[in-house]
Amino acid sequence: MTKKLILDLDTGIDDTLAIAYALGSPEVELIGIAGTYGNVRLETGVRNSLAVTELLGHPEVPVYPGLDHPSTKDGFLVEPSTARIHGLNGIGEVDIPDAKRAPQTESAVDFILDAAQTYGDDLIYVPTGALTNIAAALAKDPVAVGRIGNITLMGGALTVPGNVNAWTEANISQDPEAADALFRSGVRTTMIGLDVTLQTLLTRKETAQWRALGTPAGRFLADMTDYYIGAYGRIAPHLGGCGLHDPLAVAASIDPTLVDTLAINMMVDLEGPTRGRTIGDNTRLNDPVKTSRVAVGVDVPRFLKEFMTRITALAA
Amino acid sequence: MTKKLILDLDTGIDDTLAIAYALGSPEVELIGIAGTYGNVRLETGVRNSLAVTELLGHPEVPVYPGLDHPSTKDGFLVEPSTARIHGLNGIGEVDIPDAKRAPQTESAVDFILDAAQTYGDDLIYVPTGALTNIAAALAKDPVAVGRIGNITLMGGALTVPGNVNAWTEANISQDPEAADALFRSGVRTTMIGLDVTLQTLLTRKETAQWRALGTPAGRFLADMTDYYIGAYGRIAPHLGGCGLHDPLAVAASIDPTLVDTLAINMMVDLEGPTRGRTIGDNTRLNDPVKTSRVAVGVDVPRFLKEFMTRITALAA
Repeated sequence: MTKKLILDLDTGIDDTLAIAYALGSPEVELIGIAGTYGNVRLETGVRNSLAVTELLGHPEVPVYPGLDHPSTKDGFLVEPSTARIHGLNGIGEVDIPDAKRAPQTESAVDFILDAAQTYGDDLIYVPTGALTNIAAALAKDPVAVGRIGNITLMGGALTVPGNVNAWTEANISQDPEAADALFRSGVRTTMIGLDVTLQTLLTRKETAQWRALGTPAGRFLADMTDYYIGAYGRIAPHLGGCGLHDPLAVAASIDPTLVDTLAINMMVDLEGPTRGRTIGDNTRLNDPVKTSRVAVGVDVPRFLKEFMTRITALAA
Repeated sequence: MTKKLILDLDTGIDDTLAIAYALGSPEVELIGIAGTYGNVRLETGVRNSLAVTELLGHPEVPVYPGLDHPSTKDGFLVEPSTARIHGLNGIGEVDIPDAKRAPQTESAVDFILDAAQTYGDDLIYVPTGALTNIAAALAKDPVAVGRIGNITLMGGALTVPGNVNAWTEANISQDPEAADALFRSGVRTTMIGLDVTLQTLLTRKETAQWRALGTPAGRFLADMTDYYIGAYGRIAPHLGGCGLHDPLAVAASIDPTLVDTLAINMMVDLEGPTRGRTIGDNTRLNDPVKTSRVAVGVDVPRFLKEFMTRITALAA
């Protein structure tokens, strides 16, 4: 049976690539996109999710607005450094038409809970931004969240430094309490963090293949991703490309053999100077039950091949 | 051929257990103990190394005093919290006779370099305290240090919090610059950190077996280790025993199959709030050559069996 997939996105550039990867994957049906904040404000991300799915030929995918700020704050503003990476519009300052359809009226939190009840073990949930929606779902109905077959999140950094500062990754830092609540809940999670996503790099050599397709989708993906590669060239020139954060999480949720994982009970530092750090929870170090798996290795050539094959076919 | 082993110790309680493990291991010949500071001052550690080897029936092991403080400081004082864990005398306030023999006059740094030249690939070097001696050896003769077949250090914490604070482990925190120099040197190292040593726990049930031997060595090891178990009961009651930090490093240096390792290029944070943290070096994340292996899993039952078998036989 085809698995059902929910993406929970703050739709910037790599979120858009995650949508493309999902739509290019016959193993899963993308039954909806939940909206969150981070790379962009919630409204911008929802707008982008609607517009991108239409441009990629999938206007049937519903988009559900989620919570627009962390539970511990009263609002959200995009960091200037983030806007320089994803562009002010979130998709590398590339203009694409607004979608013809509107977002759903049901909230993302209720959509996730309903899907958990309906599909259970056949549901894959991949959040690639703040974990505010799933934490709210967990607070509302922990049993339903526990039924979700596969939660694979992009976020955190266990064995490498963060990207907000030396110890914090951007998605976790948006709402550390939400991430900590998920990790400590007993719900099974797989964490795809900077440990692996900074190993999966894309360059202008690959985006040129999309541009050469001569299609609107190919040109859009190439122009948008080149903006991202340019930003990486400024902020992390030692890498030699842009990190494929969010699409790697989608890929690993569909084919877990793409990554090597460490079974470990995780937590997030909420107090002190390392607030926002993802780290093992020493109080559960010797608990034989491990609720998280953290990716510490990735089959880079195989992932890049799948990434280019699936997205190029979709954009052709 | 029997491998040659050098231990580099700040001889407190678990360092003493590391000596006992080494002396109970037929696979290696303990050719000398280098002295460092940390659990105790250098002089106290050297005194303990001499006294313990004699009590355990091995007065032939030479002890070489090393550097007595970090290169970035002008002295060293034992932390009061450390003295409460190891006792003021470093061996749990248990009285044992001073050794009949004196320390060597050759420095630990020169001893390590001479042994590296003589034994090369057949030399195992296990530092379980500050890394000041090996950093000095590296500065003096990096080629010789590069010849050492196996450097397995006890120190650091990659996937779990530290024990000095939330991000720093005690041995690394003594001399972060020394640890960073070793990790970045290109020399191959295996890191046995809190990730695994807090999984290998000893309780009074095991120490009672040593006491029941009725020998001076058995009584000494039991009384000393019970002091340590008592300290762990106060500082980390959730563990239910004391961490076998230093002996696990010795065991893994002799039998690397006891641990699962992650190949990763490591560094130490030297600046900012996380000074002293051991973490992956992002500038070498995608370098196919990995110079470090970090233990992230351990075969606890097999290690504890080896630990009890070897040390009990030695103390009998």
